[in-house]
Amino acid sequence: MEPNLVVLRLGHRPARDKRVTTHVCLVARAFGAAKVLIATRDAGVERSVRGVVARFGGDFEVETGVNWRRVLREWRGTVVHLTMYGEVLEEVLPRIPARDLLVVVGAEKVPGDVFGLAGFNVAVGNQPHSEVAALAVFLDRLLGGAGLRRAFPGPMTIVPSRRRKVVRNRA
Amino acid sequence: MEPNLVVLRLGHRPARDKRVTTHVCLVARAFGAAKVLIATRDAGVERSVRGVVARFGGDFEVETGVNWRRVLREWRGTVVHLTMYGEVLEEVLPRIPARDLLVVVGAEKVPGDVFGLAGFNVAVGNQPHSEVAALAVFLDRLLGGAGLRRAFPGPMTIVPSRRRKVVRNRA
Repeated sequence: MEPNLVVLRLGHRPARDKRVTTHVCLVARAFGAAKVLIATRDAGVERSVRGVVARFGGDFEVETGVNWRRVLREWRGTVVHLTMYGEVLEEVLPRIPARDLLVVVGAEKVPGDVFGLAGFNVAVGNQPHSEVAALAVFLDRLLGGAGLRRAFPGPMTIVPSRRRKVVRNRA
Repeated sequence: MEPNLVVLRLGHRPARDKRVTTHVCLVARAFGAAKVLIATRDAGVERSVRGVVARFGGDFEVETGVNWRRVLREWRGTVVHLTMYGEVLEEVLPRIPARDLLVVVGAEKVPGDVFGLAGFNVAVGNQPHSEVAALAVFLDRLLGGAGLRRAFPGPMTIVPSRRRKVVRNRA
């Protein structure tokens, strides 16, 4: 599966958002994206995410400190902005192609011009909740669960279990 | 819809987890739960969540500083523990009733006995990502999207829009 799915994270403030942004990155990886771009430079988030990739596998990429307006303008494909103010997910999803897709998620405030730069503004529910949840549910619905079903060939593999932690370590 | 869905959040540390735990609470509300219980006392999280409920509506409840082992033992219904080590979501979901359900989400480390106290240990993907995402996708799949489709009659309502922020304020 290589549908060229990339996530762009806006509004990251390292002190405040480290954990939430790391969750955004790991959700992007686990639910089927190939790469995450973060508007603010943050070596700590890069290190955390690359550590997970090294242990659990796959070739997910993370890049921080990107010029996000340029990324948006130069994206050759579709831009989807996830926002509680957007169109209802279930209504808009059939019009969104599942490839060459840049999915934009903000933190608290997103510059107003993002609404115009995006091809689609999509609400995963028109209630306040979480960009982490919005990204996960959007990718889960977009790919019909296929993101989660992928195998990640890495040194560490978790073996699904009813009652215990079972980790296979090939390192 | 009153299927008695409650979320129990374990391992919350106020300084470190404030934002992520707030996301857990707002996801619980937006995706169909009636209440969230948090093992550690945190007046700040309570205030944030109640503020959202006051503005955006519904009767979602939050309680912090609960005795979580007692909650688990005394729950009259099914306990589902979301963990990357658990059974594959798609395989176990048909066996889980969608009512009288206590959904347990941890932070980084969860005490080992939680695996035994839960009726089901369920992995939303066997990859590390986010308890916020796991909760959202679990509830979305469990309720077939019905949680997100609910109306929340409150003073503020967001009107879905293609290009703008449209908020109706009845206060």
